[in-house]
Amino acid sequence: MNYEAFFGEELAAVREEGRYRVFAEIERKAGSFPYAKRYIEGGTMDVTVWCSNDYLGMGQHPKVLDAMHRVIDECGAGAGGTRNISGTNHHHVLLEAELADLHHKEDALLFTSGYVSNWAALGTLASKIPNCVVLSDALNHASMIEGIRHSRATCKVFEHNSPEDLDRKLAALDPDLPKLVAFESVYSMDGDIAPIAEILDVCEKHNAMSYIDEVHAVGLYGPRGGGVAEREGLMDRITVIEGTLGKAFGVMGGYIAASRDLCDFVRTFASGFIFSTAIPPAVAAGACASIKHLKASNAEREQHQARVAKVRGALDRMGIPHIPNPSHIIPVMVGDPHKCKFISDWLMDNHGIYVQPINYPTVPRGTERLRITPSPVHSDGDIDKLLNALSEIWSQCALARRDMAA
Amino acid sequence: MNYEAFFGEELAAVREEGRYRVFAEIERKAGSFPYAKRYIEGGTMDVTVWCSNDYLGMGQHPKVLDAMHRVIDECGAGAGGTRNISGTNHHHVLLEAELADLHHKEDALLFTSGYVSNWAALGTLASKIPNCVVLSDALNHASMIEGIRHSRATCKVFEHNSPEDLDRKLAALDPDLPKLVAFESVYSMDGDIAPIAEILDVCEKHNAMSYIDEVHAVGLYGPRGGGVAEREGLMDRITVIEGTLGKAFGVMGGYIAASRDLCDFVRTFASGFIFSTAIPPAVAAGACASIKHLKASNAEREQHQARVAKVRGALDRMGIPHIPNPSHIIPVMVGDPHKCKFISDWLMDNHGIYVQPINYPTVPRGTERLRITPSPVHSDGDIDKLLNALSEIWSQCALARRDMAA
Ligand SMILES: Cc1ncc(COP(=O)(O)O)c(C=O)c1O
Ligand SMILES: Cc1ncc(COP(=O)(O)O)c(C=O)c1O
Repeated sequence: MNYEAFFGEELAAVREEGRYRVFAEIERKAGSFPYAKRYIEGGTMDVTVWCSNDYLGMGQHPKVLDAMHRVIDECGAGAGGTRNISGTNHHHVLLEAELADLHHKEDALLFTSGYVSNWAALGTLASKIPNCVVLSDALNHASMIEGIRHSRATCKVFEHNSPEDLDRKLAALDPDLPKLVAFESVYSMDGDIAPIAEILDVCEKHNAMSYIDEVHAVGLYGPRGGGVAEREGLMDRITVIEGTLGKAFGVMGGYIAASRDLCDFVRTFASGFIFSTAIPPAVAAGACASIKHLKASNAEREQHQARVAKVRGALDRMGIPHIPNPSHIIPVMVGDPHKCKFISDWLMDNHGIYVQPINYPTVPRGTERLRITPSPVHSDGDIDKLLNALSEIWSQCALARRDMAA
Repeated sequence: MNYEAFFGEELAAVREEGRYRVFAEIERKAGSFPYAKRYIEGGTMDVTVWCSNDYLGMGQHPKVLDAMHRVIDECGAGAGGTRNISGTNHHHVLLEAELADLHHKEDALLFTSGYVSNWAALGTLASKIPNCVVLSDALNHASMIEGIRHSRATCKVFEHNSPEDLDRKLAALDPDLPKLVAFESVYSMDGDIAPIAEILDVCEKHNAMSYIDEVHAVGLYGPRGGGVAEREGLMDRITVIEGTLGKAFGVMGGYIAASRDLCDFVRTFASGFIFSTAIPPAVAAGACASIKHLKASNAEREQHQARVAKVRGALDRMGIPHIPNPSHIIPVMVGDPHKCKFISDWLMDNHGIYVQPINYPTVPRGTERLRITPSPVHSDGDIDKLLNALSEIWSQCALARRDMAA
């Protein structure tokens, strides 16, 4: 076995397919989001970021940065240990209380990322509850799929956003078996939103636990930024609400919010929680400041939705195909990895517009796209530039208008 | 199924066993490590932390804190995306170059934690290389075990630190199969060190890849802090070196260092790398400053070893049982979870000395211990207080001296 040759061949195949990923090396400028410096061979250029998941620009909010500065000065750089072995800082405890309050749950539990929170929480619940069967939405995020897979529990995949199919799948199971239904609120690549109330009706009918990933919704929806479930008044009917601190909250980390005993159970048994250094106290404090701010202020959420509506309206007028959806995510469809990368490169090189091409495995093959995320920090001028550039390339490449979105 | 009742019963069983974990809520004081404020019902008390994995106190080093402050001001709080989708900051790229240089490898790849780096890298290599067989040291860390388990590759466990057993196990396999040998340098709970050269001899004999976890060694061993493999001049013979930025480097994050194609392969296929927000640029910059400093300075490493020798020598004179080992970790053996917690509570409440009890599943049942980690920031006075307190409680509880360590 020649290992190096094997790696080289696998990478060559990915290149061939047009889905080899080249990371844009950037430096966002705090205070000037969405602008960033991009590092290129022998220099830098100015770019406007149109694909960040720092949806509200909270990553540059003075309250967030001040909290981080203060806690670095007070507590230092890292936590210094796992949560159990000297790594529980006062700021972790404050953040967990803030998150429990945000979701009106008894308790919350922090993880190093949203990925780890899904993987560890689902993996632990599904493996430690004897004979647990997991019902998983067909389009669930990789972190949920891997957690379920890791648990080795029986998993039934139900049709995307279909309470009817979920009901059928649950009805086919022994009523006495423990059941866990895992789904998302906002699906990050298509931007569609789950019929949460209907799914919860089905869960309750079959005495199944419900687990919702609100990673692309916390901070963004609901009167206090508690997510889509908060907006719809459903938080108390959900067993576990999972979220991230790395997207709308602008920092890093993940969490679950649930009953005291459920959180304590995961805290006690989840390998991915136990055996890993806690997040830096300053990161926890920054996230906490962000959550607190967005609990009290609706301005960012309103501006966000207004910016999204503006971009979407203009795309419609120009006939540029995008998936219609009720969220803040605008997937402009291209449907081919080579073309998608070409357009992305062209936008970057000719207009300093940065929209990363999204390809397999992040989306299914044939649905390659430019995923545009307008935010309150994008000006009218930024939007005009984006739309003009898109229109130009769409004409140049004789790309289909409108009907590609079908 | 009553889920809440189930969680409650499981937690009650853990309490019964004496291994229910109560996290000490502390606030380390930057500039005054190892001192911290501990939060207790209705107030705080001053404590000295004796169980941190911020082994060198780099978490309060001015260079580290300055770098973090600077990059928060320049780039903001979070990365704003996954590495592929707008989350690759200049500081991630600089840090990966620094890590590649540290280990004299072509490249390095960052993860959100050491846990994720092990889980994702081992999981990807073992699952994507067709028919790969993993040889895993019997005492490997949970993150390695979970990664191997996740891959569903065939796994053979070899006797702890036994090149002979590894040789036997490898010889029994089809010579044409791809093989991956996973082990650690410093084992974190017993503090013993692997016979790396001998293990590498065996790997080379059987054309197996070698994967070493140097999480408890990077920053601490070797002339530039490259780990035990650097100290022993073995880095170039190892396929993958894995490490953390959250222990001796004092911040947070994990990485692998390896050939360009191997890193690129993991970058391209590892779910836990792809689908997760990158670490904050300021965290990357802090870690980078820490690594740079420890590459150039041996003072911290020398003081560290001197402090360890001093504590160990005094324990020996007092007959307090601890596992002898060639590393910086001092496991004082108690062997019972209730006693271990009792001693830990007594040290904290009566002397403001914080040493977390270590129990199952972190160590095997019956080997419960106090894991003491002296560091350059502990003064002679701190050491005297620790030793006097340990001597007092050992006498009070009529705990065995010396022979318990056997
Ligand atoms: C739906 C969903 N869940 C979880 C995650 C992981 O969260 P994090 O980035 O905090 O690891 C992501 C994206 O990164 C996501 O899109
Ligand atoms: C041997 C070993 N590997 C990996 C890890 C995980 O590293 P991190 O704390 O950065 O997640 C740890 C401890 O936390 C460890 O002890």
